[in-house]
Amino acid sequence: MTKSPPVDASQEQIDTPALLLDLDVLDRNLERMAALVANTGIRLRPHVKTHKSPLIAHRQMAAGAVGVCCAKVGEAEVMVAGGIPDVLITTPVVAPEKIRRLMSLARQATVGVVADDLQNVRHLSEAAKEQKVTVHLVVEINVGQNRCGVSPGPAGADLADEIARLPGLRFRGFQGYHGSLQQVVDLDRRAAEIRRALDLLLESAQAARGRGHAIDVLTGGGTGSSATDIGFHGLTELQPGSYVLMDCNYSRIHWGADGALVPFGNAISILTSVVSCTSADRIIVDTGWKSASCDSGMPVLKAIDGATFAFAGDEHGKVSVPEGTRISAGDKLELLPSHCDTTVNLYDHYVCVRDGKVESLWPVAARGRSQ
Amino acid sequence: MTKSPPVDASQEQIDTPALLLDLDVLDRNLERMAALVANTGIRLRPHVKTHKSPLIAHRQMAAGAVGVCCAKVGEAEVMVAGGIPDVLITTPVVAPEKIRRLMSLARQATVGVVADDLQNVRHLSEAAKEQKVTVHLVVEINVGQNRCGVSPGPAGADLADEIARLPGLRFRGFQGYHGSLQQVVDLDRRAAEIRRALDLLLESAQAARGRGHAIDVLTGGGTGSSATDIGFHGLTELQPGSYVLMDCNYSRIHWGADGALVPFGNAISILTSVVSCTSADRIIVDTGWKSASCDSGMPVLKAIDGATFAFAGDEHGKVSVPEGTRISAGDKLELLPSHCDTTVNLYDHYVCVRDGKVESLWPVAARGRSQ
Repeated sequence: MTKSPPVDASQEQIDTPALLLDLDVLDRNLERMAALVANTGIRLRPHVKTHKSPLIAHRQMAAGAVGVCCAKVGEAEVMVAGGIPDVLITTPVVAPEKIRRLMSLARQATVGVVADDLQNVRHLSEAAKEQKVTVHLVVEINVGQNRCGVSPGPAGADLADEIARLPGLRFRGFQGYHGSLQQVVDLDRRAAEIRRALDLLLESAQAARGRGHAIDVLTGGGTGSSATDIGFHGLTELQPGSYVLMDCNYSRIHWGADGALVPFGNAISILTSVVSCTSADRIIVDTGWKSASCDSGMPVLKAIDGATFAFAGDEHGKVSVPEGTRISAGDKLELLPSHCDTTVNLYDHYVCVRDGKVESLWPVAARGRSQ
Repeated sequence: MTKSPPVDASQEQIDTPALLLDLDVLDRNLERMAALVANTGIRLRPHVKTHKSPLIAHRQMAAGAVGVCCAKVGEAEVMVAGGIPDVLITTPVVAPEKIRRLMSLARQATVGVVADDLQNVRHLSEAAKEQKVTVHLVVEINVGQNRCGVSPGPAGADLADEIARLPGLRFRGFQGYHGSLQQVVDLDRRAAEIRRALDLLLESAQAARGRGHAIDVLTGGGTGSSATDIGFHGLTELQPGSYVLMDCNYSRIHWGADGALVPFGNAISILTSVVSCTSADRIIVDTGWKSASCDSGMPVLKAIDGATFAFAGDEHGKVSVPEGTRISAGDKLELLPSHCDTTVNLYDHYVCVRDGKVESLWPVAARGRSQ
C-alpha cells in the first residue's frame, strides 16, 4: 500500500501527488491573524472547513481562538472528538438524523448552530428538550449572498423571539456571510461592499435589541474581509478559514492602502512529478482533477516564473515552461492550489515539512465529512 | 460519528449528501457491455479509475473482463489486495518509490504498465531483474490527445526493440487513448475521429510487426467509443470505465444511427437535501464542490423536468425549479453527476440501493489513491 514518507525524509523523497504543509508558514499565519484581532475586542472563531484537522484547530485555539466554525455536523464531530470544546455549525441542520447527532454533540461540547427557518427551530428545540441539552442558536441573515438566511431587519428578530421562547435553545445573535466578496481584489471596493453587507447584519441586531434580546454574537467575515471586519463596530466574532493555509487566488488580493498583498503566506502546496515528457511542449505531471480542485481556476507553479499549469484529466496535468527551462520525466514540481478548501478535501493527510524535511504527517481527519 | 444507513432502510432514510448506487442499473450496464463485446474477439479490460471498488471490478470479471486497467499504482494495489489477478497501469510509472511498489505487485499478480520513455523502460527492467519478476510492457502511442505517448510509427517500434532486449520485461503491444473524443455527441463525427486515432495505433503495430514483434495487446477506447472500437479490425482490448456507473454527460451522446442514446443507464446519483428555502428562488441544498465534481459541468436533477442545479460553494448548491413545484427544507432530491470518476472520488462509500431500499454499503476502496 501507499507508503508514508519517513520522518526526516527530504522533500525530494516524498511520493507524489502529495499535499505539503510548510509548518513555518503555518505558524506565521497563525501569529499574523492573532496580531490582527488583538486589542480589537473581536473574538476569533476560525472556520475549519478549510483544513479539516483538529491538530490545526488546536493551534488556532492556542493562538487565541474561542472555538471553531464547522460547515457540517460531521466536521463538528471530528473536532469535538479531537478535543475542541466549542463549535458553531454555520449551515442549517435540518434532517432528523443530523439533529440527533447534533444533540449528541451538545452533551460533549458547547454547540451552536445557525438557523433561518421557524419549523427547523422548533425541531431543534424538541430534540434539545428531549435530550436535556442546550443548543446555542445563531440566526442567519442574508446579507447579499442570496444563499441561506432570512431577510435583514425584523425577520431575524421574529425568529429570535421564537427561539427565546422555546426550551433547549439559547438565542445568541446573528450570522451574516458574503463569500463572493472575499476575493474582490481591489481593497476599497471590497471594503465598501463588505461594510454594506455588515450594515445589514447590524440592522438585524438593532431590531432584535429593540425587542429586548441580548446580542452576544454577531459573526461573519472571511480571510479577505478580515482587515475591514476588525474595524467594523458591532461585529463580535470573525470566522476566517483560508488564512491559515492560503491559496493562489487569495494571494492576489490587495490588503494595504499602499498596494500591499495579503499578509498570509502559502502554507500548502501540491508536490507533483513529471511522468511523461515526450517533447518540450508536452510536460505531463501526475496531478489532475483528483488531486487538485478546479472549481476556482488553475493551480500555479510555485518556483518557475512564467510557467503555467492546465488540467489534462483526472490524474494528469500539463505544464508549460518558458523556453530554455530544462524539465525531464521524474522531476518534481510544486503547485499552489487555486482553492485550499476543496484541494485539502482530496487528501488523506498533510505531509508537514520544515526547512525542506518531513517533520510529521497530519491526518485530514474530517476529509469527506460532508454529512 | 457519521452513521451508515442500516440495511433495508428506505432511500428516504439515507443521510445526505450520499452517493447512491442502483444495483439493478449496475447489473444491466455490466450485461450490456458484455453483450457488446461478445463474439467480437476483443477482450474487455475495464478501467477502475471510475469506480475504485474491487467489488465492482469482480462483477466486471464475472461478466467476462480479462483484468482491469488502473490509473495509478495505488489503485492497482487496492485491486490486487482485493483479489483481482491481472492489472494494467495506463500511465507511466516513473518515480523510484513507485517502481519499487510496482515490482512488489508483480510478485502477487499479472502486472502490466505503459511506458513512453527509454530511460523509464531501463529503470523498470533493472528493478524487475533485481526483484526477479516479469512486468508486461505496453508502449503508449500519442494518437492525438497530446498527453503521454510516443509519436505513431517507428518510435513505438524503437521502444519495443529495447523492451524485447531487456531482462525482466515482456513487450506486449501498444496503447492509444483519445479521451477528448469520448463525449463527442454526434455519432458519425465521433466514429470518424476515433477511427483516425486507431489508425495511428495500427500504424505503430505494423511498424513493430515489421521488426518481428508479436503484438498481443492493442488497447484503447472508452465508453463513448466502444461501439466503434468493437468494429475496428486489429484492436485486441477495450478499456472503458464510465459505462458501469455513467453520468449525465455520457448520457447525452448518440449511439445508434437512429439517434438512440447510449445504452448504459445512470447507476449512480447524489442524494441531497434542501437545507434552506427562504424564498421560492432560494432553494439551497447540501451538495457543493466537496460532494459533486465540477470539472465537467453541472450535475442535473434526476426527477424534476426543467429544474437546474448550480454550485453555491464548498457545501452548497442552488436548485431552480419550474413555477408551481413545491419544495421545502428537509426535502430530498437526486442529482446526476456530470463526471462519475471525479464525483466517486469524493465519497468513502457507495450506498447500494435496489427497489428504493438500502442493500449494502460498498467502500470506494481506492478513493484518494492518486499516488
